[in-house]
Amino acid sequence: MGTDNAPAEDIRGVVEALGDPGRGDGFEMILVGRGDAIEAELARYPRLDRSRVSIHHAPDVIAMNDEPVQAVRSKRESSIVRGITLHRDGAADAFVSAGNTGAVMAASTFILGRIQGISRPTIASQFPAANGFTIVADVGANVDTKPRNLYEFAVMASVYAEQIFGYANPTVGLLNVGEEEGKGEERAVQAFELLRESRLNFIGNVEGRDILKGTARVVVCDGFVGNVVLKFAESVPGLLRTKLSGYATTGFLAKLRLGFARGALKNIFREMDYQEYGGVPLLGVNGVSIIGHGGSTAKAVKNMIFKADEMVRREVNRRIGEQLGL
Amino acid sequence: MGTDNAPAEDIRGVVEALGDPGRGDGFEMILVGRGDAIEAELARYPRLDRSRVSIHHAPDVIAMNDEPVQAVRSKRESSIVRGITLHRDGAADAFVSAGNTGAVMAASTFILGRIQGISRPTIASQFPAANGFTIVADVGANVDTKPRNLYEFAVMASVYAEQIFGYANPTVGLLNVGEEEGKGEERAVQAFELLRESRLNFIGNVEGRDILKGTARVVVCDGFVGNVVLKFAESVPGLLRTKLSGYATTGFLAKLRLGFARGALKNIFREMDYQEYGGVPLLGVNGVSIIGHGGSTAKAVKNMIFKADEMVRREVNRRIGEQLGL
Repeated sequence: MGTDNAPAEDIRGVVEALGDPGRGDGFEMILVGRGDAIEAELARYPRLDRSRVSIHHAPDVIAMNDEPVQAVRSKRESSIVRGITLHRDGAADAFVSAGNTGAVMAASTFILGRIQGISRPTIASQFPAANGFTIVADVGANVDTKPRNLYEFAVMASVYAEQIFGYANPTVGLLNVGEEEGKGEERAVQAFELLRESRLNFIGNVEGRDILKGTARVVVCDGFVGNVVLKFAESVPGLLRTKLSGYATTGFLAKLRLGFARGALKNIFREMDYQEYGGVPLLGVNGVSIIGHGGSTAKAVKNMIFKADEMVRREVNRRIGEQLGL
Repeated sequence: MGTDNAPAEDIRGVVEALGDPGRGDGFEMILVGRGDAIEAELARYPRLDRSRVSIHHAPDVIAMNDEPVQAVRSKRESSIVRGITLHRDGAADAFVSAGNTGAVMAASTFILGRIQGISRPTIASQFPAANGFTIVADVGANVDTKPRNLYEFAVMASVYAEQIFGYANPTVGLLNVGEEEGKGEERAVQAFELLRESRLNFIGNVEGRDILKGTARVVVCDGFVGNVVLKFAESVPGLLRTKLSGYATTGFLAKLRLGFARGALKNIFREMDYQEYGGVPLLGVNGVSIIGHGGSTAKAVKNMIFKADEMVRREVNRRIGEQLGL
């Protein structure tokens, strides 16, 4: 209910997910939010199979700029709190939201609880790389983390990379300012030891350039640097578009040349566009909670739903628990 | 002497700098390194005005992978140590090197000393932005910094942005994971207070995406995150080239389209290429010390020399001292 174009865009995403010829089978949707608004939107899709959709009324709305923890405490009848509670109570196998990220993180952690052995849940995001994707955790702004947190991020992101991206025994790199052991801030130096002693496929320190190079399948870092790099990366296509538009105004020939290249460039930008991937899971909670951008398109919402479906099927949480138990 | 193509590429840069029709006047060069190797390279440029070039023999070489502090201590007759000592003793107004970055940082700090009031020198780097450049400090891997260090980085980078880039009273942003005050790691929360109480043109927290947007002319951060973002940014053109090449192999038409766009793309990539800018100054030492990539081309070396020239003329250090004295 709190996204930029709620609930129209979100519901279009649900309809597209249910109708997808490849991945649209095998799940049902509970739409949590203001019943009348949801009903009005659903009425726009008369051919939708309504037996696969139910509505759970939740009158409160957590806005994008609400202070997360306070909003979760005070707005008990919000779609975020109600939806995650339905998941905890077993009425749903997963929860998906493009609403207030902090609120989804807080409500998921409070209501679902953490997987045993995990001290802080993490958000892992995917970056395009020369050879597929690089999974970076934490990008969810877990700041002032301890070395132990970075080890846990590595375990969670490794299971996620293996189960959802199909990277067997994924390589793990520790984000640092140099490749040599002993480099970097105190936290990284200590995390290096924990990772080396673990059963993960740890390949040592990696640097900022290694994310796009794909040197390691999984890159772990404190959420401060991960969040900065994620937001930086998301802003790259915007700068390229601005610069290309500037170039196009330098003359007719320049414009013509760029016109020819549009298709190629669109392809590249698409790979750098989060809408393609939908949301990212909050790893480490006792459940499946998928978080998307507030500006998610229907396509992004659809892909978030597919990701939730896959997280449940691949039993990512059970495998994380297993890895920690080793 | 320790760069990837030393001394050929470095000396070609010197020759190009001295011969530049626009900025090549008003300075002389002392080439510090192995005399015979330098002499042999210089012999390739018979038309060079040798009255503007002298050679200072330094037999030791600090390699790119030498441990910086140890190398500076043990290799007293290296080009880095000898060159910076010549600068300290007044034989040169500035020092330029594309050698081992850590060694140049360490030698500059030990030999030149720090500007009064500066506890840690910083490397500030420029990022392309929609409206010019964003200056980010620290990117030189000053890790485990204190809030006071971030304030000092802001002072030094502001003077640099104003004097070298011509941005009057430049806006300063604190790199963080959210815009709201009180966000982020403890260091950032405390640095926010110092910056707000300062006479700098502080506009508050900025996020990773604001670097390329150009929200603030100066962005300050701990060197760990700054170094990661810098190296990430430097790797973006490489990924784009890889992806575009991949697209070009999808068919004749794709290749043709890309051929047309090559000129436009080259323009964009050039702006993201550090070779264009040459090196970056180590701010906060009692002198002018310009540091370049080990793989610097002659063009990059030339631009480093011009930057050194400008740093001296604009009296950047005196102005930093003034700002701190306020």
